[in-house]
Amino acid sequence: MKFEVLAIDGAARRGRLTTGHGVVDTPVFMPVGTRATVKSLAPDDLVAAGAQMVLGNTYHLLMRPGHEVVRELGGLHRFMGWDGAILTDSGGFQVWSLAKLRRITEDGVTFRSPVDGSSHFLSPELVIEVQQALGADIVHPLDECLAYPATHEETERSSALTLRWARRARDRHRATGAPAQALFGIVQGGTYADLRARAADETVALDLDGYAIGGMAVGESRSAMYELTALVAERLPSARPRYLMGVGKPGDLVESVARGVDMFDCVLPTRNARNGQCFTWDGPVVIKHARWTRDPAPLDPNCACYACRSFSRAYLRHLFVSDELLAYRLLSLHNVRFFLDLMAAMREAIAAHAFEAFRTRFFSRYGVSSVDVSTDERAGGEV
Amino acid sequence: MKFEVLAIDGAARRGRLTTGHGVVDTPVFMPVGTRATVKSLAPDDLVAAGAQMVLGNTYHLLMRPGHEVVRELGGLHRFMGWDGAILTDSGGFQVWSLAKLRRITEDGVTFRSPVDGSSHFLSPELVIEVQQALGADIVHPLDECLAYPATHEETERSSALTLRWARRARDRHRATGAPAQALFGIVQGGTYADLRARAADETVALDLDGYAIGGMAVGESRSAMYELTALVAERLPSARPRYLMGVGKPGDLVESVARGVDMFDCVLPTRNARNGQCFTWDGPVVIKHARWTRDPAPLDPNCACYACRSFSRAYLRHLFVSDELLAYRLLSLHNVRFFLDLMAAMREAIAAHAFEAFRTRFFSRYGVSSVDVSTDERAGGEV
Repeated sequence: MKFEVLAIDGAARRGRLTTGHGVVDTPVFMPVGTRATVKSLAPDDLVAAGAQMVLGNTYHLLMRPGHEVVRELGGLHRFMGWDGAILTDSGGFQVWSLAKLRRITEDGVTFRSPVDGSSHFLSPELVIEVQQALGADIVHPLDECLAYPATHEETERSSALTLRWARRARDRHRATGAPAQALFGIVQGGTYADLRARAADETVALDLDGYAIGGMAVGESRSAMYELTALVAERLPSARPRYLMGVGKPGDLVESVARGVDMFDCVLPTRNARNGQCFTWDGPVVIKHARWTRDPAPLDPNCACYACRSFSRAYLRHLFVSDELLAYRLLSLHNVRFFLDLMAAMREAIAAHAFEAFRTRFFSRYGVSSVDVSTDERAGGEV
Repeated sequence: MKFEVLAIDGAARRGRLTTGHGVVDTPVFMPVGTRATVKSLAPDDLVAAGAQMVLGNTYHLLMRPGHEVVRELGGLHRFMGWDGAILTDSGGFQVWSLAKLRRITEDGVTFRSPVDGSSHFLSPELVIEVQQALGADIVHPLDECLAYPATHEETERSSALTLRWARRARDRHRATGAPAQALFGIVQGGTYADLRARAADETVALDLDGYAIGGMAVGESRSAMYELTALVAERLPSARPRYLMGVGKPGDLVESVARGVDMFDCVLPTRNARNGQCFTWDGPVVIKHARWTRDPAPLDPNCACYACRSFSRAYLRHLFVSDELLAYRLLSLHNVRFFLDLMAAMREAIAAHAFEAFRTRFFSRYGVSSVDVSTDERAGGEV
């Protein structure tokens, strides 16, 4: 994997990731394909929306259909029919948030599957092995996630364990990994600036292909998330990509790009689509409202997605209130397109050294940045 | 609307309907778009599958969003973004099977909406008015449907009412209809040969643009359905299209084309897709079976649909057992494509005067005709 920074504007970076499955322009938003599918969308929908990279959740794929099945069927790209780039997370967040009866030791984590109650053990080495079977372009080491809030002591101990696990993951990856598969580190450290700084420095010392900022958007305030993101991003090497895991709302993407983040993933565009919330440049639209019953206008006249080119708000509302499956697909198509268009607009603004003007214009139209609303987007995959 | 018979092979006919929304090759299968959407499919999916005409359910559209809303938004074609031909039924079957507290008089039918309990009245004239608002290419007169079984006396009385309503519908249609909108008659008569023959003759005397065979696939035996279909089809004028409402399974389509039917609609391809049953030339496939867990082969190697070109049975099974929305769309895409391919194969066989050979070959591969299994496909729309 190769990463080039093509332009810098303030802390914002316009870059290019070259993977074994195509070029990815950064800042990039990765639609979430938890179970080897971005919910309700097919690969050709993603291509049409402009997606270059999607995320798969290691934990969910391990539970079903199992990494051996995916390996046997030619890896995750072939299994899900996606020729673009794929990033897999480590499963740490999901074990923390979804699994039952988890027990963490120095060795790794034991937990019960919520699917069938079966017992599983994951170590840093096994997580690398699972991700090698899946065959993503970018993989992650097992990390420990903490509930918010956590004490300084708990966070320090946990962050140190994540570091030790990252070293073991790196060693296994170096010994057995395919050269095309990149390994990122995950910077934890909770809401403590000193621990975040230490975690960043020690993770960077492992000399990994890129760096993820983990443990964000779990309930802390937006201002804390922005500050800690800036703090960590500043300490990460400029020549490597920076990935803010599980973030976020459109405003969060703009604010985090402004702080030097290159990569994002979030369930919001697809999950909100299924709840009838649509993203537009003028702010969110709730499609079920009776005011759209006879509205012949598209969801967003500025959007070139299939839904906006083909259908009225009245029709989309009719589908949604009728619980028609097509509603979920069309609104997902639109929302994913909006997130990808937003990233493209940011890339263009950075390249033109006009990011600050873009940021001001974006918020004046979309609505003010909800900096004081606490974060709650992180979903641990979309099921 | 123009109808031409291009080739005849036995009783089977290869024809061409020319509508205000394109040419429709017959025998044709119309995917069911009950609520202005063929479940889980978008118009471009239908075009890719080869659909030339879809069915809309007058009753469901009247209940939601209402025919006035559809009219205001430019008619059903524009509302649902479908440029091909559309046929609407009359709502009679749905009032019979779905509505609560219906009361039938000479004037028409009064019923309560199962959506909101509101009271509605439909007369033959109002049903024409509603369908004019929807703007389908082919519309139908209000008819009375009977439960199976019904006595000869009940059936005779009901069939006569349907005839009187058809005359009123025709008169209203002639007085107020757009020239491009065709009106079909509906031949009732239950399972009684004499009543079917009389209904056919009296409906034909109304000189309508085409003739539907109604009240089939409601529980009678397959052999009865085939015999009555043949009996009615023979009495219908060869220069007008013949439509067997709500039928059927692949074998029923082949057997009914052999008896001179030109048009079909049925919820099976889409409804069964959502239940995980897929149609193939080698018979049905139940996708959730564990035997497909590691199967890299497509659902049907002979099929050119997006699902078969892009994905393995293993992946489709994974999506289905994971309750992923994409499963319903991909299996619907495939099933609709199979039904449309089957019709295309029949058209080709008729044109080549080789329909009997095709019929034998079809059943030897797909499985024997279940002539003694009673019919139960008629769904009154797909909700």
